[in-house]
Amino acid sequence: MTTLADTIARIRMTDLAVAAATQQLLDNKTKPRHSLGRLEELACQIAAVRGTSAPGPLYKAIVVMGADHGVAAEGVSAYPQEVTRQMMLNFARGGAAINVLARQAGARIVVVDMGVAEALPDEPAIRAHRIGPGTANFARGPAMTRGQATAALEAGIALAGELVSEGVTLLGIGEMGIANTTASSALAAVLTGATPETVTGRGTGIDDAALARKVAVIRRAIEVNRPDPSDPLDVLTKLGGFEIGGLAGVILGGAAAGVPVVIDGFICGAAALVATRLAPTATGYLVSAHRSMELGHRHILASLSLAPLLELDLRLGEGTGAALAMPLVDAALAILRDMATFSSAGVSDSGA
Amino acid sequence: MTTLADTIARIRMTDLAVAAATQQLLDNKTKPRHSLGRLEELACQIAAVRGTSAPGPLYKAIVVMGADHGVAAEGVSAYPQEVTRQMMLNFARGGAAINVLARQAGARIVVVDMGVAEALPDEPAIRAHRIGPGTANFARGPAMTRGQATAALEAGIALAGELVSEGVTLLGIGEMGIANTTASSALAAVLTGATPETVTGRGTGIDDAALARKVAVIRRAIEVNRPDPSDPLDVLTKLGGFEIGGLAGVILGGAAAGVPVVIDGFICGAAALVATRLAPTATGYLVSAHRSMELGHRHILASLSLAPLLELDLRLGEGTGAALAMPLVDAALAILRDMATFSSAGVSDSGA
Repeated sequence: MTTLADTIARIRMTDLAVAAATQQLLDNKTKPRHSLGRLEELACQIAAVRGTSAPGPLYKAIVVMGADHGVAAEGVSAYPQEVTRQMMLNFARGGAAINVLARQAGARIVVVDMGVAEALPDEPAIRAHRIGPGTANFARGPAMTRGQATAALEAGIALAGELVSEGVTLLGIGEMGIANTTASSALAAVLTGATPETVTGRGTGIDDAALARKVAVIRRAIEVNRPDPSDPLDVLTKLGGFEIGGLAGVILGGAAAGVPVVIDGFICGAAALVATRLAPTATGYLVSAHRSMELGHRHILASLSLAPLLELDLRLGEGTGAALAMPLVDAALAILRDMATFSSAGVSDSGA
Repeated sequence: MTTLADTIARIRMTDLAVAAATQQLLDNKTKPRHSLGRLEELACQIAAVRGTSAPGPLYKAIVVMGADHGVAAEGVSAYPQEVTRQMMLNFARGGAAINVLARQAGARIVVVDMGVAEALPDEPAIRAHRIGPGTANFARGPAMTRGQATAALEAGIALAGELVSEGVTLLGIGEMGIANTTASSALAAVLTGATPETVTGRGTGIDDAALARKVAVIRRAIEVNRPDPSDPLDVLTKLGGFEIGGLAGVILGGAAAGVPVVIDGFICGAAALVATRLAPTATGYLVSAHRSMELGHRHILASLSLAPLLELDLRLGEGTGAALAMPLVDAALAILRDMATFSSAGVSDSGA
């Protein structure tokens, strides 16, 4: 069992010398300097993460973690809690958006039950790392114990390590959990210092009354629990979710193993906040897939200093944005690998 | 030979009833309504263009047209004119960015010499539809004759018709031509009514002095030629390029044949302006791949009421943005085709 502390200690800075060498290679390709913009930055980042200007083929896996949230009892979601379980079964059977989009991206998906309220039936397509039958209602007390928070993180770390040892070279993360935008908004408020209003949105589609209730619940949760912003594990314990902790663990485990992690939308952004407050050097391993419609996402991305690749008004979660962004990573590495140079192609170079 | 006027007359409005029916199908999929944002809009648009909520597989072709521009003599580009020819050979041999990215997107590329200054050697991978050995310097008089402008448009129309008859169901367009951002800025200024300054940028990377020269050249070209903004063929004749006319023709031919056209960056945007001023209903067939770094591109997109799918700070051209956007079209149609419905998956629907 790799512990949280060991994993954090193993995360190295990404290799900026490799990034610079990769940019030089790109500057010799038959195109004006930097004319492929973000694609060139992405190629340099992946090279820096992998420690080589010739990263091999991408073997992609998207980890989709699901769990339930006690705070759903406060009426903060447009959907009933049983939808978490129903959607996990939909993932297992291949009918959800993430199944379709992961297939398009050439990524396998790994569905993990981190703690859906009612245990799922035995399904070979669902892995169980249940920390509990959903979190407690954090409007009344901590969502979980500190031990559970650590266990969720370590489950994600172990899974990332396992996938990398199987050959995965590009991780993506996604999630499912009715009321998990409420948990994510609470985490974002505490970890970025923003007011609950500015980081709380409509999730899957609540009306004005429910939105006001959601903000009030988050404000109450922060008052009741008094999380310590300087202790990310405390914040996760009091306001998090099992899938959010698990995904933060996947980020840490991926970074420790030298693999980039494509993060999806708002909830994955909250997981990234937790992970990078635990291990700031993990930030260099993150690729932000997209900016979602959820109000607080831009605050999270700004706090992480990440620029999203896509802005497609998505607000679904599941890892769908991560799947949509993965072909851009393929494209960036193909440019690095396959384009001709000015000299090999006999093209005049302006130096521009 | 299909004439320009016949083609324009054949372009029908895209089918908004099919778009609405497609949105209904998407609303029954296991996700909150509209939670896939722009991807859902894209699926509805493609369905409306194809006239069916079950559009078949995408067979993709990107038409890359190259030509030279007499205005290059005014020192408006960072690269010497021979680079047009060198890059056309690079396309033919597979070493350019568009070759790499089209391969990633599963698109064939069709390279067309619309009038490079020095004719290219016989290369099976390059089609010749040479309107002339480059345009005349439009700072001193019209870039081409009205007959040449019509011939360029009709070459593009014929090519689009040919590709569609071969089974292509998704067209993309790209271009190569030293100094063609100058022509595009001039076209954009006249067709959108913007001042030359606001639609003239650094192209492949000119310095401040060259940028000032470029703006002055465009202002002079408009004074010398007095193009009639209400006559798009006149504007193309006086300020256009052979590849720009050809690409406008591909748009018209694609629209007439009921096929969507993914337009790349600034120069393709200028071609789209010409095409849609000739045939306003063609606008419904256009998918804007990305917003480029080139200053005037946002004016063109605003004038076309098109929202770009990507914003990756690209400024390369060649069709690279179109190739990068094509996987999003694949993804949109896969969602429409493959996702489970609430009832088939046994998932509760909130109606949200």
